[in-house]
Amino acid sequence: MLMSTPKKIAILGASGYTGAELVRLIAGHQHMEIVALTADRKAGMTMAEVFPHLARLALPTLTTIEEVDFAGVDLVFCALPHGVMHKVVRTLPDHVKVVDLSADFRLDDAEIYKKWYGIEHTAMDIQPSVAYGLPEHYRDKIKRAKITANTGCYVATSLLPLIPLVKSGAIKADGIVIDGKSGVSGAGRGLAETMLFAEVNDGFRAYGVAHHRHMSELDQELSRAAGRPVMPSFTPHLVPMSRGMMATIYASGDAVRAQQVLSDKYRDEPFVHVLELGQVPATRHVQGSNLCVIGVVADRSPDRVIVVSVLDNLMKGASGQAMQIANLMLGLDETEGLRMAPIFP
Amino acid sequence: MLMSTPKKIAILGASGYTGAELVRLIAGHQHMEIVALTADRKAGMTMAEVFPHLARLALPTLTTIEEVDFAGVDLVFCALPHGVMHKVVRTLPDHVKVVDLSADFRLDDAEIYKKWYGIEHTAMDIQPSVAYGLPEHYRDKIKRAKITANTGCYVATSLLPLIPLVKSGAIKADGIVIDGKSGVSGAGRGLAETMLFAEVNDGFRAYGVAHHRHMSELDQELSRAAGRPVMPSFTPHLVPMSRGMMATIYASGDAVRAQQVLSDKYRDEPFVHVLELGQVPATRHVQGSNLCVIGVVADRSPDRVIVVSVLDNLMKGASGQAMQIANLMLGLDETEGLRMAPIFP
Amino acid sequence: MLMSTPKKIAILGASGYTGAELVRLIAGHQHMEIVALTADRKAGMTMAEVFPHLARLALPTLTTIEEVDFAGVDLVFCALPHGVMHKVVRTLPDHVKVVDLSADFRLDDAEIYKKWYGIEHTAMDIQPSVAYGLPEHYRDKIKRAKITANTGCYVATSLLPLIPLVKSGAIKADGIVIDGKSGVSGAGRGLAETMLFAEVNDGFRAYGVAHHRHMSELDQELSRAAGRPVMPSFTPHLVPMSRGMMATIYASGDAVRAQQVLSDKYRDEPFVHVLELGQVPATRHVQGSNLCVIGVVADRSPDRVIVVSVLDNLMKGASGQAMQIANLMLGLDETEGLRMAPIFP
Amino acid sequence: MLMSTPKKIAILGASGYTGAELVRLIAGHQHMEIVALTADRKAGMTMAEVFPHLARLALPTLTTIEEVDFAGVDLVFCALPHGVMHKVVRTLPDHVKVVDLSADFRLDDAEIYKKWYGIEHTAMDIQPSVAYGLPEHYRDKIKRAKITANTGCYVATSLLPLIPLVKSGAIKADGIVIDGKSGVSGAGRGLAETMLFAEVNDGFRAYGVAHHRHMSELDQELSRAAGRPVMPSFTPHLVPMSRGMMATIYASGDAVRAQQVLSDKYRDEPFVHVLELGQVPATRHVQGSNLCVIGVVADRSPDRVIVVSVLDNLMKGASGQAMQIANLMLGLDETEGLRMAPIFP
Repeated sequence: MLMSTPKKIAILGASGYTGAELVRLIAGHQHMEIVALTADRKAGMTMAEVFPHLARLALPTLTTIEEVDFAGVDLVFCALPHGVMHKVVRTLPDHVKVVDLSADFRLDDAEIYKKWYGIEHTAMDIQPSVAYGLPEHYRDKIKRAKITANTGCYVATSLLPLIPLVKSGAIKADGIVIDGKSGVSGAGRGLAETMLFAEVNDGFRAYGVAHHRHMSELDQELSRAAGRPVMPSFTPHLVPMSRGMMATIYASGDAVRAQQVLSDKYRDEPFVHVLELGQVPATRHVQGSNLCVIGVVADRSPDRVIVVSVLDNLMKGASGQAMQIANLMLGLDETEGLRMAPIFP
Repeated sequence: MLMSTPKKIAILGASGYTGAELVRLIAGHQHMEIVALTADRKAGMTMAEVFPHLARLALPTLTTIEEVDFAGVDLVFCALPHGVMHKVVRTLPDHVKVVDLSADFRLDDAEIYKKWYGIEHTAMDIQPSVAYGLPEHYRDKIKRAKITANTGCYVATSLLPLIPLVKSGAIKADGIVIDGKSGVSGAGRGLAETMLFAEVNDGFRAYGVAHHRHMSELDQELSRAAGRPVMPSFTPHLVPMSRGMMATIYASGDAVRAQQVLSDKYRDEPFVHVLELGQVPATRHVQGSNLCVIGVVADRSPDRVIVVSVLDNLMKGASGQAMQIANLMLGLDETEGLRMAPIFP
Repeated sequence: MLMSTPKKIAILGASGYTGAELVRLIAGHQHMEIVALTADRKAGMTMAEVFPHLARLALPTLTTIEEVDFAGVDLVFCALPHGVMHKVVRTLPDHVKVVDLSADFRLDDAEIYKKWYGIEHTAMDIQPSVAYGLPEHYRDKIKRAKITANTGCYVATSLLPLIPLVKSGAIKADGIVIDGKSGVSGAGRGLAETMLFAEVNDGFRAYGVAHHRHMSELDQELSRAAGRPVMPSFTPHLVPMSRGMMATIYASGDAVRAQQVLSDKYRDEPFVHVLELGQVPATRHVQGSNLCVIGVVADRSPDRVIVVSVLDNLMKGASGQAMQIANLMLGLDETEGLRMAPIFP
Repeated sequence: MLMSTPKKIAILGASGYTGAELVRLIAGHQHMEIVALTADRKAGMTMAEVFPHLARLALPTLTTIEEVDFAGVDLVFCALPHGVMHKVVRTLPDHVKVVDLSADFRLDDAEIYKKWYGIEHTAMDIQPSVAYGLPEHYRDKIKRAKITANTGCYVATSLLPLIPLVKSGAIKADGIVIDGKSGVSGAGRGLAETMLFAEVNDGFRAYGVAHHRHMSELDQELSRAAGRPVMPSFTPHLVPMSRGMMATIYASGDAVRAQQVLSDKYRDEPFVHVLELGQVPATRHVQGSNLCVIGVVADRSPDRVIVVSVLDNLMKGASGQAMQIANLMLGLDETEGLRMAPIFP
C-alpha cells in the first residue's frame, strides 16, 4: 500500500480541552501530522507541561499564532474563543482549509451574531461560502468548503434528531422543548468559581436559562428545516461529569413515524445510531467515541413524542466532529481516526 | 421550661436510606424518641452494622415488624417498599398515627394504584380519611389525620410550584412538560447493576421515560388543582450525585404573574423559598435541609415560562417532609428537628 | 430555663468554605449570634450572593475587617489565609477571644514558620500564651487562652491517633508513614486550574509530596509527644470528593496495645470514636459531623500496625473543631452546635 | 501490504468489565477477530444488551463455555472469576494459547493459592510452564508460553517500580510500605451493597487492610527480586472513580539512584514512563491507555524515598496488559491495538 504524505495540521488554541482532544485524535490518525500548536498565554510551554496525559507524544512546542508558518499547513483547526477567528481568517494563505470550532462562522446574520456574542463581525462577506459543520446534513458543501463552522455541542445533540423530524413533518416545529444536559468539559478550562470541583460535585444546576448562545444556532437551523421561523424552548443544565451531553426533547407528533424517519435517515451514517422505538441511550454509551445515539419514545398523550439524544461533547459535540469534517475537506475517509469504540466504564 | 415526655416513634423499614435519614432527624429532635426499628431481612443486626455513620447513637436493635409492641408507640414512620403498608395498617392499635413514605395511600383510585404498582389494594376503605402529605397544601387535614401519605419525591418537587400556578391560572394546565432529575439515593439501597458506582459515575441517563409511577400522583393532584383531567409530560433522569432533585418545568403562561403567585403563596412557609424573577436554584443550595427552592424565568417566547424547583430527595422529598408531617400530626412545632441549614460543599 | 445572652461572634474571612461552615454551625448554636462577617474582596455583598445555600439565614452583610466594631464582639473566628492574623491580632481589644483557623499561631518557632509559609512572623512574643487547638490534648490551656490556633486538617487526622500511641510507646516514634487523603474543599474556594471539576473528577493524585506545610506541625507535635525530634513520612493525596479526610498510618508496634491505648484515652471524648481491633472507618461515616473515627489493624508482620483515621476536613478538621474550641473558651458546653449526626448518603 | 489472516480470539467471561474492555481493544486491533464470547449466566444475550456501548460492533452472541468450538480458536482470554480456569485449561486443545486474567496461575505454591483463594488447585503440574504476565520482566518466557497469568492490578502498579529498585538495591527490600488506591471497576460488575453509587460517591475508604489477596503475589515476586523472603505492608483503598490505580510506595534508599535505575530500565519500554526526579503522576494522565507512569521523590529524611506509580486498572492493570501479552504470544507487534493516547478529561 502506498502511503500518502500526511496532511499538515495546525491547531490554534491547543491549551484548551477541545485542542487537547484534537491532539489525541490526530495521534491515532493515519494521514495527519501536527506541525503547529498555538496557545497565546502558554506559548513556549510544551504540551506535556500543559497536558501531562499527552507527554508520550512527539509534539511541537506551543507558540503564538503569529509564529506559525501557514505556508506549510494544509488545514487549521481553530479551537480559539469566539471572536478571534473571524479576524485571523483573513491572514491565512489561500490554500489553507479551516475547521472552526468557535461560533464565528455559524450564524448567517451579523446582527444575531452581535446580539449573542457581543462582537462586531468583520468577515461576514466570507460567510456565504462557509459550510455549516453538521456533516450528516451538509456533507456536500463541507467537501467543497474552504472554511467549515463546526456546530455548537448542544446544537449537534439537538439538530441530529430535530432536522429530519421537522423537515419530514413527523413532529410539529412549534412548541418544541429541548432540555439539555452537559458534562463540565463543555465549559472549557478557564478559571471560574462555578467550575471548581467542590461547587459542581454531587449537585445539579441549570444555567443560561432562556438566554444560552446556542439558541441562535438552534433557531437558525430549525427555521431552515421548517421553512419558517421557529423558536424552541431550551434550558441547559450542568451535570457532575467530565464529558457527555444529552438533549431530552418534547414535541407534538407521532412516535412511530418519528423513529422511522430517523432510522431511515441515518441508516448508513457511521456516527449516528438510532435505537428501536421505546429505547433510550445514556451518555456512557458514547463516551470517548464520535457517536450520537438517538432514542424515540411515545409519550402517554397519544400525539406527544419524547426524543433522547446523546453524544460526547468533546467528540461528536466538538473535536470528533471537527475531525470528521476535516477528513471530508481533505478528501480522506470520513471515519479515519474516529473508529474507536466508546470507553466504559 | 417544662419538657414534655418525648413521643415514642417506630420506624418500619429502617435499613433503607429514608429510614436512616429519619433516624438522623430524630437524633436531633427535642421531642421524639425511637422505640423500635424494623428491617425484616436484617432483623437482629444493630443500626451500627447496617449504617456505620449512626454508630454513636443509642438505638434499638433491628427487629421484624411482628416483634414490635405498638402499644407503646405514638407514631409510625413507614419506610417500607410499596405494597406492604396497606396490609400492616390494619394490624396497628387505634392510637397509633402513621406517616407512610410508600405509595400505598397516595392514590384515591384502586384501579390506578393497581395499574402502576401491580398490587391489589386491600385498604381502600380507609383512603378517604388519609391525608395527602404535602403540608403546604393539606396542612389542616394532616393535623387531624391518623394516616398521612407522604408524597413521592418527584411529585413534591413538581407540585410545590405547579399547584398554585395551575390553580391561579398563571400557567395553562395543558401542555406542561416536567423534566425531572434525581440523585441516586432516590432509588434506595437495593442491589441493581444499574445502580453500581461504575455504571452511574461520570454519566447521565433517562429512565422510566413516559411510564414512571410518579405520573399517577402528578396526574391526580394536577387534575385536582385544575378542576379537570390534565396529564403532563414527565421524564425522570438519573444524576451522578447522592442526593438532590430538580424539576425543570416548561409551561404556557406569564412569568411575572407566576413568580408573584408563588411568592405570595409561600411567603410564610418555613420550607419553601421562592427566588426573584429570573433567578434559578441549584440542588447544592438545599442539600441536607428540608428546603424546596423555586425559581421562575420568562422564556424567549412571550407567553412561555420556565420554572426550576429543587429539593433534597431524602429530606423535603421523603424523610424531612415525613418529619414535618409527623410534627403536625403530633401537635409539635412543624419545624422541630428540621431547622438545620443546608450543608455545602 | 434562663437563657443567657448569646455570645457575639465575628467571622473574618467568611467568603471561604471554612467561613461558610462556621455560619452553618452558628445557625444551629443556642448561644452564639453573628455580628460581623468580613471578606475583603467581597465586602458589600450579602452572604446569599456568595453562598446561596445560606440565603434563608438573617446575616450581616460582608464588610472589610476595618469596618468591624470589635468592641461588641466576644469571639473572633479567623478563617483568613495564612499570614494575616498575626498582624490583625494586635489591633483587637483585650476582651476579644480568637480562634484562628490559619497557621499563624500553630508553630512555636518563627524560623520554621518562615521556612514553610514564607512570611516573617511579627507576633511571636504572643505565641507562648497561645493554646494549640487540639481539645482532646490541650483542653485546659484552651479554656484559659485568649488565642487558640486551630490545628491543620491533616494534622488533626494524624495526631488524634498518633499522640497517645507515641506517648505511650505503643508504637515507635521513628519510621512512621502517614499516607493522607483529602476531599477537595480543603483547598478552599480559590481559583486554580488544578481544582476545576474536569481536572479532579474521576481521578486521583498526590500533591506536595515530601514538602507539604502540615509537616511542620506534625513534626512539632510528634516530637513533643516523643520527647525528642521525630520526622514522619507524609504524602497528601486529593480525592474526588467534596469533604472528608483519611490518614492511613503505618508504624512499628503492637496492634492490640495500640487499640487499647486509644480506646482508653478517648472513651469519654464526645468527638473521637475508636473502633474495635481490626475494624476501619470510611470518610462517609463522619461527613457533616464533628467526629474523628479511628481504627487499628494488626499488619501481617507481627510488630507492624496500620491505623486508619477519618474526619470531615471542614468539621473536626477545621470549623467544627474551631467551634468546639470556641465553646471551651467561652465556658459553654463543648458539644453545643456540634451534636448533629453524620449525613449519609 | 499483505494482510495476515486475523487471529481467532475467544473471551471467556465477556460480561464483566475486563471482558468488555478486551472487546473494545480487539475492535481496534488489526490482526484479531472475536469468534466466541462466553458468559454463563447471560448466555443467549447479545453484547449490545449486556454492554450498550458496544452496540455498533458486529459481535458473536454470548454462549456458555461448553458451546465454544475451541478448534477454531488461536487464543483465549480468560476473564472469569478465580477458580475456574485451572479446571477449564485441561479441556482446551493443545494449539490454544491462554492469557488468564484470573489469579489461578499467578502463584507458584498451591498452599499459598489455597490460603488466599480458598480453592484446591488442580493444575499445579502445569504451573512451571506458565509465564508470569509482567512483560517488562518476563517477556521472553511469555513469548514462548502456552499459558500466561496476567498480574493482579495492584501488583502490576507496585512491581513495575519495585522489581528494578529491589533487584538493584536502590531501595531496601525490608520495611516497604505500599499504600494502594483503586477505581471502582477493579471490583468488577458483581452486585454488592458496598459498590452502589450512593455508598461510594463522595467518600473514601480502606478495605482488605492487612489481608488483600494481591499480597500473595507481591510477596512472591518481591521475594524473587530480593533473593530472599520479603513482606511489604500493603493497604488498598477505594477511590470514587471508575478507573485508575495508584501505589504510593515508601522505602529506604537513595532517590537519585532510584530514579536512575527506573529510568534506565524502562527507557525503551513502550508502556512504562518514568518521570524526572521530583515529579509525580496522576491517574488521569493514563486513563484509557496502557501506560504505567512512575515518579520518584526524595523524602525529607535523607535516606527515604517515595515512589508514585499509576496505571489504568482495566488497561495496564488488566485487559490492556493481557492484550500486550497476547501480542507477544502470537508473534504480533507488542503495541498493536494499544497505541491510543490517554483520554482526558
